[in-house]
Amino acid sequence: MAEKLTEQERSEALAELPGWSQSSTRDAIERTFTFKNFNEAFGFMTRVALVAEKMDHHPEWSNVYKTVEVTLSTHDAGGLTELDVKLAKAMERIAGQIGVKNS
Amino acid sequence: MAEKLTEQERSEALAELPGWSQSSTRDAIERTFTFKNFNEAFGFMTRVALVAEKMDHHPEWSNVYKTVEVTLSTHDAGGLTELDVKLAKAMERIAGQIGVKNS
Repeated sequence: MAEKLTEQERSEALAELPGWSQSSTRDAIERTFTFKNFNEAFGFMTRVALVAEKMDHHPEWSNVYKTVEVTLSTHDAGGLTELDVKLAKAMERIAGQIGVKNS
Repeated sequence: MAEKLTEQERSEALAELPGWSQSSTRDAIERTFTFKNFNEAFGFMTRVALVAEKMDHHPEWSNVYKTVEVTLSTHDAGGLTELDVKLAKAMERIAGQIGVKNS
């Protein structure tokens, strides 16, 4: 089972994930992605969903038209693990390919 | 442009949409759908996304594993319109086909 990241591991991971920040209320990381329209936002979600299902590690996320807000944390570990960092990096790759409007 | 529903239209619409309720904070309707797993929850979202895009009317929704929380309101009209009722009914049809766990 994935174990919670140490403070140092967490700092190193966030340094590699610009745009992501530590949640103010939970041991989790968050990012808001803004796309051009719903087609691109939901296209992003669909590609991420396939990755998440394959990893058996799923995001908490919400979508309003062209915006997708994501929170990542590992339920079984009660906090942030390497699974969240891996999924965040996959999201960055996919968003970059689609053309996210913020960075 | 779609116009806000009257009180009577709203009551009639909600009577046809068991499981949906008026939001306590906005002129909107809400429902939480619970499925068997992420595959079914995201499958539901994908089918709804195609309908929403075709209607050019999109939900506000969030997903955590097997749960999908939906809020429907018509931004341009500043409240609930027939578009929301139509999308809610489409969601009910799709959830019923997938096998939603609550009703």
